Amino acid sequence: MKLLRWGEAGAERPGLLAADGTIRDLSGEIRDIDGAALSDAEIVRLSGLDAENLPVVPADTRLGAPIARVGKLIAVGLNYADHAAEAGMAVPPEPVIFMKATSSICGPNDPVERPRGAEKLDWEVELAVVIGARAKYVSEAEALAHVAGYTICNDVSERAFQAERSGQWVKGKSHDSFAPLGPWLVTRDEVPDPQALALWLDVDGAAMQRGTTATMVYGVAFLVSYLSQFMTLEPGDVITTGTPPGVGMGRKPPRFLQPGEVMTLGIEGLGAQRQVVVQA
Amino acid sequence: MKLLRWGEAGAERPGLLAADGTIRDLSGEIRDIDGAALSDAEIVRLSGLDAENLPVVPADTRLGAPIARVGKLIAVGLNYADHAAEAGMAVPPEPVIFMKATSSICGPNDPVERPRGAEKLDWEVELAVVIGARAKYVSEAEALAHVAGYTICNDVSERAFQAERSGQWVKGKSHDSFAPLGPWLVTRDEVPDPQALALWLDVDGAAMQRGTTATMVYGVAFLVSYLSQFMTLEPGDVITTGTPPGVGMGRKPPRFLQPGEVMTLGIEGLGAQRQVVVQA
Repeated sequence: MKLLRWGEAGAERPGLLAADGTIRDLSGEIRDIDGAALSDAEIVRLSGLDAENLPVVPADTRLGAPIARVGKLIAVGLNYADHAAEAGMAVPPEPVIFMKATSSICGPNDPVERPRGAEKLDWEVELAVVIGARAKYVSEAEALAHVAGYTICNDVSERAFQAERSGQWVKGKSHDSFAPLGPWLVTRDEVPDPQALALWLDVDGAAMQRGTTATMVYGVAFLVSYLSQFMTLEPGDVITTGTPPGVGMGRKPPRFLQPGEVMTLGIEGLGAQRQVVVQA
Repeated sequence: MKLLRWGEAGAERPGLLAADGTIRDLSGEIRDIDGAALSDAEIVRLSGLDAENLPVVPADTRLGAPIARVGKLIAVGLNYADHAAEAGMAVPPEPVIFMKATSSICGPNDPVERPRGAEKLDWEVELAVVIGARAKYVSEAEALAHVAGYTICNDVSERAFQAERSGQWVKGKSHDSFAPLGPWLVTRDEVPDPQALALWLDVDGAAMQRGTTATMVYGVAFLVSYLSQFMTLEPGDVITTGTPPGVGMGRKPPRFLQPGEVMTLGIEGLGAQRQVVVQA
């Protein structure tokens, strides 16, 4: 099942993508797509609905992030060996974890703002994991049962704010629109192996990132288990799992985003996103 | 006005501390104390209520954190010059910002969990700022008008998780119960100068931290303005502003918390907290 949220920013309504490619309205079935909607029982119930009986939403409707009221947006750094190399950093002995402000979350095709004073705006296509069940001290074997599904995150970053403005990356990771999520949350039953997905990102149609989740250093099950040793993961939390090679700061010479440029990105089986860069 | 939340964890109800020292129930007036309750207009309305007409809540009722559904829990590192010195670090040229997981928030007198495998559990009494109005690119002069009020945060930290487990502090700052907030949110009209408040923290009755917000490197107005350059601050967000000297890792020899030990802490005009350490 592909769950989504549609409508004006701040007033999104729940929906799903039907097998025929139409968007269907779930407003009559559920209040919103949030942590409470992501239990196994709710997903089974919604999966049992006949999409043909649900109202059709116009195809050109804006999509929001597919999860409302995300409690934590947790990110993993340097989680592809070849990306660590292009960043000039060693693969860490255990996962590097940082946070992005939840206020940075936006829809998959919303404009991305270049902050005032920014000169090093960069892209990162990433597999994002959406938590469905509370996880505290869970084993790697138990971990995937706590995952509701998967979506795409563009972990937009301002490299100077991240690394040249006094310690801790959160400053360069948290501006409004720095976390486009979506287009939909694909439930885990439709993603049999999260470690075998192709990822791609283009800027103005030119290929920038090409990778596969097969080359992650720390896989999804390990990350969920690992994180649950340090904090409790709650339904609706999102973990974005790091990016493959090809980011702007790793190019020779480095290449950063300018207003008017367009990012397109996608992950196998999870759909695609498109963002125009605008000045804040 | 001193706003608070009372009742069982996860089912707290809104209340206030009346001038006679009794807790009064605000359930009939407002749904909860969260971002939506913290506008200037709502605070003026609630301030206008006659507390004597509100139901009395038993004095021994558990208190929760005084703000529900905190969107972001933002923390400032090394923000007292003498604390930076005891941590063996230089005062940073601009504020060091990190995040704590919002799932670490608990009531002011709830037990604090020592995570499994933790050996360096430490305390940090801090002035916490609660945002009342959306702030994006606000000037220092405008900043305090975006603050609803103040409370206490014990920025509980596991130093090995924070600094010895591969980059970024969030791992040592985010375990459940690592952010006791409260006992109440004191609205800003009752805190004429947030840079003139005494802070203290004891462990098992022995003085550990004694300080004043007068020695902060970056004050509240500067921090709100500064943060608003990197992310949008939203009503209900909390900024905890750093700790004065006297943390366990700065003692000679270092002194960390053990199960059964008791932290008591407070800030002038903002009340006090008490936490027993328990093993997770």
